[in-house]
Amino acid sequence: MDHWRIKLAWDGKGFLGWQRQPQGLTIQQAVEEALASVLGGQSVRVTASGRTDAGVHALCQIASFETDVPRSPKAICLGLNAGLPRQIVCLEAERAPPGFNARSWSFRKLYRYRILARRVRCPHRDGGVWHVRQPLDVAAMTQAARAIEGRHDFSSFRASGCSAAHPVRAIESARVLTVDDELHLEFVGNGFLRHQVRIMAGTLVHVGTGRIAAERLPDIIAAADRAAGGQTAPPHGLWLVWVESGDGPAYARKTP
Amino acid sequence: MDHWRIKLAWDGKGFLGWQRQPQGLTIQQAVEEALASVLGGQSVRVTASGRTDAGVHALCQIASFETDVPRSPKAICLGLNAGLPRQIVCLEAERAPPGFNARSWSFRKLYRYRILARRVRCPHRDGGVWHVRQPLDVAAMTQAARAIEGRHDFSSFRASGCSAAHPVRAIESARVLTVDDELHLEFVGNGFLRHQVRIMAGTLVHVGTGRIAAERLPDIIAAADRAAGGQTAPPHGLWLVWVESGDGPAYARKTP
Repeated sequence: MDHWRIKLAWDGKGFLGWQRQPQGLTIQQAVEEALASVLGGQSVRVTASGRTDAGVHALCQIASFETDVPRSPKAICLGLNAGLPRQIVCLEAERAPPGFNARSWSFRKLYRYRILARRVRCPHRDGGVWHVRQPLDVAAMTQAARAIEGRHDFSSFRASGCSAAHPVRAIESARVLTVDDELHLEFVGNGFLRHQVRIMAGTLVHVGTGRIAAERLPDIIAAADRAAGGQTAPPHGLWLVWVESGDGPAYARKTP
Repeated sequence: MDHWRIKLAWDGKGFLGWQRQPQGLTIQQAVEEALASVLGGQSVRVTASGRTDAGVHALCQIASFETDVPRSPKAICLGLNAGLPRQIVCLEAERAPPGFNARSWSFRKLYRYRILARRVRCPHRDGGVWHVRQPLDVAAMTQAARAIEGRHDFSSFRASGCSAAHPVRAIESARVLTVDDELHLEFVGNGFLRHQVRIMAGTLVHVGTGRIAAERLPDIIAAADRAAGGQTAPPHGLWLVWVESGDGPAYARKTP
């Protein structure tokens, strides 16, 4: 068996997220179908480092699969791109160590939430940023983001229906960056609960508009109650930027 | 009569450029139609700082019009955006000095040509960059760009059908910039011939791939013959970034 690591970028518009769904097309299904034709009809299961929501974009997701069909990295990468819908691109394919699994070996990822805070839309970024019409208080958001960092029970930022075994996650960094005319909320962590990044982004925007005081963030987290958190930001502003995977299963690094 | 200056951004895909055409929808037509409804049905002619080709994008184009219908800047801007197709946005509207004309008062503009030079596409930038599969020699392109700067007869970079009275233009700067994973060709000048920026970009890409030697640029320009220039780069990589207009007609500044 050959183990493979592939890097994928996609525009999430029009897809029901990563994971296969009976209701419609997902990234996983599109990749598995394209891969089957590269592998001469063999179907394989493709595993990503984690699930992403419907409408969320990826700059570089890592995924894995195994097959006994001999193919070169170039044949995998170009073959995938020949079969994939235009919204999904295989950036790279490479042989991975035996046992490689993108989900269990990944231990760190960066999500970026992009916000365009100004009165008028931008015609070039409609599907890639959250357009917020009010001005945002960046200093207050920065203060609030600091309270998110660390290891917490994130039940206040967890969607109902989240299937995670427990609500504790470690956020290595939560930063508020001004990048040209955009505001970027960047979160690095070992894993995230369902909708966690979008709820953190929505809560920080509530802080930015003054609806939630920055000082309240520690209490909101301590409440461990979704009702205490802010709004869920829309998916189209969210970007999975990179994923780090190690040289073996990452269970030992997982929290708690 | 009130004179108005408006700033426009657009995604050029699906439009036949700025200028009204009997064959299909143009930016000018869309703006004039939206403006008529803001002005209670009065039709006015909207003038841009210059024409742009079909498919070319604008980050900030300047345009002008005059009307005797009293409207606030906010009413003009929001009203335009309510009526414009989503691909066009009015960024700002402001009262301009008497006699203001975006075409004759503009004296300097920046065009950026965006190139993504790598094997695989990017699903997020298909419509906004020229995807060139070969690696490009940036040093050679930089040397070639230097030969473009200055005042020249640019007949070698002028499309047939160009209606300009003469082929001499002054290129204040022609730069090759590496910006993240893109290559940007930036041209500042007082005015450009038809397809000039796209032919300069296409010629520089020929230099980057080794098809044209960088040292040949002065001869190519001196030939003053379109056949001597390189390919015309596709329109979707071209962005009008900004336009400067002065406090009066720019004829005195025009070249020659």
